[in-house]
Amino acid sequence: MTVGDLTERALIARIQSRLPPAPAWMPVGIGDDAAVVEPERNRLEVLTTDALVEDVHFSRAFTPPAAIGHRALAVNLSDLAAMGAAPRLALLSMALPAALPVADFDAIADGFASLAAAHRVHVAGGNLTRSPGPLTLDVTALGTVKPRRALVRSGARAGDELWVSGSIGAAAAGLQMLQASVEAGLDATSPVEAGLRVAAGLEACATRYLFPEPRVRLGTLLARNRAATACIDLSDGLADGVQQIAEASGVGAAIDASELPIDPAARDWFASRGRDPVDDALGGGDDYELLFAVRPRLRHRLAAAALHGGVPLRRIGVCTPGRAVLLRCGSIERPLPRGYTHFQ
Amino acid sequence: MTVGDLTERALIARIQSRLPPAPAWMPVGIGDDAAVVEPERNRLEVLTTDALVEDVHFSRAFTPPAAIGHRALAVNLSDLAAMGAAPRLALLSMALPAALPVADFDAIADGFASLAAAHRVHVAGGNLTRSPGPLTLDVTALGTVKPRRALVRSGARAGDELWVSGSIGAAAAGLQMLQASVEAGLDATSPVEAGLRVAAGLEACATRYLFPEPRVRLGTLLARNRAATACIDLSDGLADGVQQIAEASGVGAAIDASELPIDPAARDWFASRGRDPVDDALGGGDDYELLFAVRPRLRHRLAAAALHGGVPLRRIGVCTPGRAVLLRCGSIERPLPRGYTHFQ
Repeated sequence: MTVGDLTERALIARIQSRLPPAPAWMPVGIGDDAAVVEPERNRLEVLTTDALVEDVHFSRAFTPPAAIGHRALAVNLSDLAAMGAAPRLALLSMALPAALPVADFDAIADGFASLAAAHRVHVAGGNLTRSPGPLTLDVTALGTVKPRRALVRSGARAGDELWVSGSIGAAAAGLQMLQASVEAGLDATSPVEAGLRVAAGLEACATRYLFPEPRVRLGTLLARNRAATACIDLSDGLADGVQQIAEASGVGAAIDASELPIDPAARDWFASRGRDPVDDALGGGDDYELLFAVRPRLRHRLAAAALHGGVPLRRIGVCTPGRAVLLRCGSIERPLPRGYTHFQ
Repeated sequence: MTVGDLTERALIARIQSRLPPAPAWMPVGIGDDAAVVEPERNRLEVLTTDALVEDVHFSRAFTPPAAIGHRALAVNLSDLAAMGAAPRLALLSMALPAALPVADFDAIADGFASLAAAHRVHVAGGNLTRSPGPLTLDVTALGTVKPRRALVRSGARAGDELWVSGSIGAAAAGLQMLQASVEAGLDATSPVEAGLRVAAGLEACATRYLFPEPRVRLGTLLARNRAATACIDLSDGLADGVQQIAEASGVGAAIDASELPIDPAARDWFASRGRDPVDDALGGGDDYELLFAVRPRLRHRLAAAALHGGVPLRRIGVCTPGRAVLLRCGSIERPLPRGYTHFQ
């Protein structure tokens, strides 16, 4: 059975059956012309939208449907996290090829609903339509943050330290691994192949690509006591993130190559492909870690984020006067490689 | 020049140049990970999302780019109007074929920005990505309404009158006219052809399809003094709207065929094609009028909406006990034909 065999209403009901009832602050939820929501008191609202388009952001050849649903929400929650906002609700708009199996549709909804439940994000509505081309998920997410606590990109000053959460490069390596397994004729979505990947130590990277964990807790902790002066999420890679913060803040940056928390399995993978692990880790997208600036005399404010943020934090460089964005390898400095850009 | 020749950032700048500066209540607008917005005091928020997908909701063969941008926002503002909400902001997510001419991209942005300006809707953000298939615009809109004033579908009771704004059928006729002109080998987007259409009296219907006017003023007036007990917009046609209100409210309905405000040019067009004008006008989508229920003893509350709503109002039927949804033609009653459904 494919989604083309069902009505829009039947498909909406399949999504709704996976969601908890609307909370008291949402007096009208899915099913009317629009949802009605009580704003949270004494909070600013943070709004973002991001899309996943088949064969641009994922391939169904190696992305299990649950991962498609998970990632569509995760990339939006990551944007909220980068602003220090606690997520509250989301809207999901899907364009579905008529031949999409209903089982895949259900699994996409499961992936979305699971991550939503984990972060107490309520689905306030959505839209379903046929697609004559790619499967597309367009998500809008709304979060809240206390007044004057939102983390922007533009607050860094020369002298601020640059920190990054978790590790980088794993998602890019995972994507390469999944692509390579498809090119080798393997079925990347089969449990057997997954078992082989685990045995080869590759599963962790693939999982980082397929099921990124948005750093929601870390973001809200960084905002709560203004520990960070600027923040961005690494959707397009660390190099791009550093450039964006530097440009928005009107500063330069110097990143220490030896301090980069490159995922060890990713480092091995890149090296095995004859690539420079530092370049690939810096340029690779989809990490969804947070990059943020910290004023050195306020570094103690990082304590709560370091203790309770759920992910290690690493100082990787510093903001500099001037506008140059450099990578330091020992005594050698070179321009930081450019990150991923969408329309080239 | 096509959008594939430009960076995402350059394309965003082209949109931003068409928008007014962010208002004071939006301290962070386009350009960060997410927008930051102060909620309006003492208001509920109303949220909706709707997509336009090429070759599902429009064809570029006969839809000028400005109309694509206009419609993408209009269908969302219409949903807000149906809830009685005043629109406040929108987010625009676009998936663009690389071969889309930049001039068309600009015109899409112009169409979107013009309607946004007309309704004082501020663009809080968006997303641009490549599309390997159709041009897709996904819009999320947020509006506000006073507590206990939102218009839902479920408030109608037996005895309530059913009213509709403006006229129906024109958009469906306009779409058929545009399709026919393309099939006849005419260029539906050329000014010369447009001139011929005006001469033939067809332009008004085509304009209703291409540039629908969301009934924002009417919706807010209906909500302000609770003139309506239930409301829906006619995105999928009048027949569908009546069914939806009846189902959500647990009532039946009887529609008087002789009271339907069928657009005269549309009526002539349908008749000239050998079709039943009543069936085509009832079933045709894209009207974006409002259908609403009014308690007879509170009919005087309609005065403000009738005077200042900017569109004529017409009583077309009544809600009935039981669940049957009927069309009355003189002494004959028959089931109301079903409206448009997306996944069949």
